[in-house]
Amino acid sequence: MKVKGKQYRAIWMEDSSVIMIEQNKLPFEFSVHECKTIDDTCTAIKIMITRGAGSIGAAGGYAMLQAILNTNKDNIYDVLESAKAKIDATRPTAVNISYATTRVLEASKISKEFAISEAHAVADECAEHGRLIGINGNKLIKDGDTIETHCNAGWLALVDYGSALAPIYAAHDSGKSIHVFVDETRPRSQGARLTAWELNQHGVPHTIIQDNAGAHYMSLGKVDIMIVGADRIAANGDAANKIGTLEKAISAKYYGIPFYVAAPSSTIDLNTPNGTEIPIEERGVEEVLFSYGKDNNNEFHTILTASPGSKASNPAFDVTPAELISGIITEKGIIQADTESIKKLFTDDI
Amino acid sequence: MKVKGKQYRAIWMEDSSVIMIEQNKLPFEFSVHECKTIDDTCTAIKIMITRGAGSIGAAGGYAMLQAILNTNKDNIYDVLESAKAKIDATRPTAVNISYATTRVLEASKISKEFAISEAHAVADECAEHGRLIGINGNKLIKDGDTIETHCNAGWLALVDYGSALAPIYAAHDSGKSIHVFVDETRPRSQGARLTAWELNQHGVPHTIIQDNAGAHYMSLGKVDIMIVGADRIAANGDAANKIGTLEKAISAKYYGIPFYVAAPSSTIDLNTPNGTEIPIEERGVEEVLFSYGKDNNNEFHTILTASPGSKASNPAFDVTPAELISGIITEKGIIQADTESIKKLFTDDI
Repeated sequence: MKVKGKQYRAIWMEDSSVIMIEQNKLPFEFSVHECKTIDDTCTAIKIMITRGAGSIGAAGGYAMLQAILNTNKDNIYDVLESAKAKIDATRPTAVNISYATTRVLEASKISKEFAISEAHAVADECAEHGRLIGINGNKLIKDGDTIETHCNAGWLALVDYGSALAPIYAAHDSGKSIHVFVDETRPRSQGARLTAWELNQHGVPHTIIQDNAGAHYMSLGKVDIMIVGADRIAANGDAANKIGTLEKAISAKYYGIPFYVAAPSSTIDLNTPNGTEIPIEERGVEEVLFSYGKDNNNEFHTILTASPGSKASNPAFDVTPAELISGIITEKGIIQADTESIKKLFTDDI
Repeated sequence: MKVKGKQYRAIWMEDSSVIMIEQNKLPFEFSVHECKTIDDTCTAIKIMITRGAGSIGAAGGYAMLQAILNTNKDNIYDVLESAKAKIDATRPTAVNISYATTRVLEASKISKEFAISEAHAVADECAEHGRLIGINGNKLIKDGDTIETHCNAGWLALVDYGSALAPIYAAHDSGKSIHVFVDETRPRSQGARLTAWELNQHGVPHTIIQDNAGAHYMSLGKVDIMIVGADRIAANGDAANKIGTLEKAISAKYYGIPFYVAAPSSTIDLNTPNGTEIPIEERGVEEVLFSYGKDNNNEFHTILTASPGSKASNPAFDVTPAELISGIITEKGIIQADTESIKKLFTDDI
C-alpha cells in the first residue's frame, strides 16, 4: 500500500537484507529498518520493529532465507534446522513464525532453490490472500458507504493489503467514494495510531472516533457496514478479535447493520469447536493506566492517566458469537459464520 | 463521602468563604481551594476548580450568600441582582447556576435570613437527593454484586453521594460486599480519573476497565447490574448521558443484565418529548487525539497519541432509548422509563 505516494509492503528482501517498516516509531515517524543478518532479523522480530501475524510470519521465512544465503554448505538442512530454532524462539507464542520456518525447512529437503522460493512464497501468499480478501470484500461496499473498523487489521500486520482493511483499499482504489470510522481501540490505540496512519498515507478519507462512539453513530444511521479482522475463528464461526469488537457486533445487530469478519482461511482453527475454547490473553494493566505519545516539542513521554492506586484489568481480546456475524470474508470467498459453511470452505471449492 | 478517611462534600461554606475540592488537580493531588470573595468563587467556577451540575449550582448559591455577607445594606435585592448577573455569566450554558441564583434572589424578597437559608438549601437539597437516590438504588444491589458504571456521576459532581454512585456508596456502607467495574470513559477519562479516585478514597473495591471491555465481562456473567447517571432525561424516558452509555445499554440488554439510570428528578425535562430532541454537544477533537497526565518524575505532559494529520470527532453524549433502560432511580423512588411513569412522578406521590 502507499506511503507518501510510494508503494510499500510491511516487509521485503533486498539482496540478502530483510527490510521492514519500523512500526515502533509509527505513527510519528516513517522509516525502514535493514536487517543484514539473521541475528538482526531475529532481534527486530523480538523488539517488534515488525509486528502482526502475517508480517512476523514473513519475517521468519525471510530469516530462514538469510540463513541459506549466508552458508557455503551444499546440504543446508542442518543449517536451517538450527536457524529455525533461533527464529522460532523470538516470539514463542506466535504460531505464524514456526509455520513459516517449517515450510522453508521442509522445502529444503527438495533443494536449496525450493527452500528459497518457499521463503518468498510465505510472504507473497500472505499479501495475495489480503488482495483476494479485498476483491471479495469490495463486493459488500457500495459507493458512498461509511465503513467502521476496529483495531488494525491492515497491511502493516499482514505484509500487504491486510484483512479488514483490504476491502476498504479495494473499494477506494476502484473509485468508490467511501469514508472510514476508525475506532481508536483502547488501550493500545492501534486504530488511532496504525489504521489511521495507513488510511492517511493511502489517501482514504477517515475519522478517528472514540471507542465509545460506535453505537452512537450507528443509531444516527451513519454506519453502513462494519468490517473487523480476527485473531482466531472457531469451527462454529465464533470469532476472537481485539477487545471491543463484541460491543460493536452487538450494537450493529441492534441497529441492523451488516457486521463482517475479514480473515485469511488460515485464521480458522478447526480444532477449536467454539469461542468459549479460545483463551483470552490478559495483558499488563500499565497499558490501561498509562499513555505514550509525543508532546509539542517532539519529546516522547509515558504518562499516568488514571487514579493512582486503582486497579485495572486488560483483557486483550473478546469473542463475538457467530450469530452476530453477517459473514466471514476469506481469500476463497465470503461464507456464512456457521459450522457447515466453514467445513465446506475446507473441503469444496466455493 | 470519604477522602483519606475524613468526610467531605465537593463544596461547602466556612464563615464567609466558599471551600471547594480542587478538581483540576484530581486524581493526582487532593487539595481544597478557598474562595474568600464572590469574585474568587466566580473565577473558580469559570476555570472549573469545581465542576459537575450539582456542584456548580451549589457554588452559584454560595456566591450569592457571599454577596449578602459582604454588604451592609439592609435592602439586599439590588446587591443580589447584580451579583446574580456576574455569577450566571461564569458558565452561561449551565442551567444549574441560574437555577440556584434565582432561588436565592427570590428568597431575598422575603428577608435576608430566607435568602441565606435558600443558598444553603440549594447545596443541601442536591446532597439530600443523592442520599435518597442511594437509599432507593441500594434496594437493587445484592450482597456480592458487581456493578458496572460509566463516566463520573459521583459526589464530586453533585455536592455529596452522587447519582449513579450513590447506590454504590449506600450498598458499601450498609455492609454489602460489592465490586465496581469502572469504565475508563474516553476521551476525558472521568471514570479512570474521578470515579476510580472517589471509590478508592471511600474504600469501595473497584477495577478500571477499558471502555471496550464492558460487553466482554457481561458475556462472562461478571456484571450483575449496570448503573449510570444522566445529563438529561426526555419525557418518554430516553436518556442522554456520556458517550458510550448507549453501547453498554445495548450490551446489557443482549445479555439480560439490568441497566438503570440514576438521576435526581430535576434531570427529567418534560419539555423534551424524546431523545432525538436532545442536542448532542460536539467537543474539541484534541480531547480524542491528545492525553494529559503525569510522568514518573511527577511532571505533567499533554501528548499526541494518534496518527498526526488524521481527523477525529468527539460527540460528548449519546442517547439511550427508554426500551433499554430497566428503570430510573430518583430521589422519590424507582420508576419505569416510560411516559406514563414519568408523568406520574411529577403529579403523584409514589
